[in-house]
Amino acid sequence: MIKRVEHIGIAVTDIDQSNQLFESLLGIQQYKIEEVESESVKTSFIDANNTKIELVQATSEESPIAKFIAKRGEGIHHVAFEVEDIEAKMAELKEKGFRLLNDKPKQGADNKLVCFLHPKDTNGVLVELCMSVWE
Amino acid sequence: MIKRVEHIGIAVTDIDQSNQLFESLLGIQQYKIEEVESESVKTSFIDANNTKIELVQATSEESPIAKFIAKRGEGIHHVAFEVEDIEAKMAELKEKGFRLLNDKPKQGADNKLVCFLHPKDTNGVLVELCMSVWE
Repeated sequence: MIKRVEHIGIAVTDIDQSNQLFESLLGIQQYKIEEVESESVKTSFIDANNTKIELVQATSEESPIAKFIAKRGEGIHHVAFEVEDIEAKMAELKEKGFRLLNDKPKQGADNKLVCFLHPKDTNGVLVELCMSVWE
Repeated sequence: MIKRVEHIGIAVTDIDQSNQLFESLLGIQQYKIEEVESESVKTSFIDANNTKIELVQATSEESPIAKFIAKRGEGIHHVAFEVEDIEAKMAELKEKGFRLLNDKPKQGADNKLVCFLHPKDTNGVLVELCMSVWE
């Protein structure tokens, strides 16, 4: 079973502008900006009390975020579920027929190991599994 | 300030099939299926511990969900933020220049009063504000 919704990822073109927009909308300021070089993204995190909002901006045209925005525009990009044991959950879902976008957990933002599932297997939802490295 | 992420809404074409899919994915069964006639949708709710997942299926071709799926396919449709006082939050956001899709709070699923914001003002994210009627 998943533990919780760890965050909701939103693809944006200008993270500084979006930080201001979401602060105005939610009344909450981002608490951390982080660049993930391996994914060619810059991220910022907003603590929405029970879960987080992650704004994600591409830092290269090769980034999956740049491709997503080119195709669909800005908007909700993924939902991340925290799991107890990411390798066990990946094996369970693979066995059930869900396609994994990476065979091994990879390093994501916010000190997490992550794995994405193929959205065609999950009603068009890009699902991220994540596990904190320090747990 | 918003209180929390109340739920994440996912547009689906076959809610029974999606209930099974999400149970298989998350390890959690839906706890409530509800039809909202005014919105021409059938919804089911999954308790993801810290927030909810709401699956939404159109019951008529006129439903906004049917139009969303026709245009973009199944996938994440909206994110709902719980607020303390929906009329006050609507007035605050209108004053700030956010366009509201309904001028007065309307009855949504799960015994809530709801208001949607124009996604063009929120980085392409369809934002729902909601408040429990019994609070």
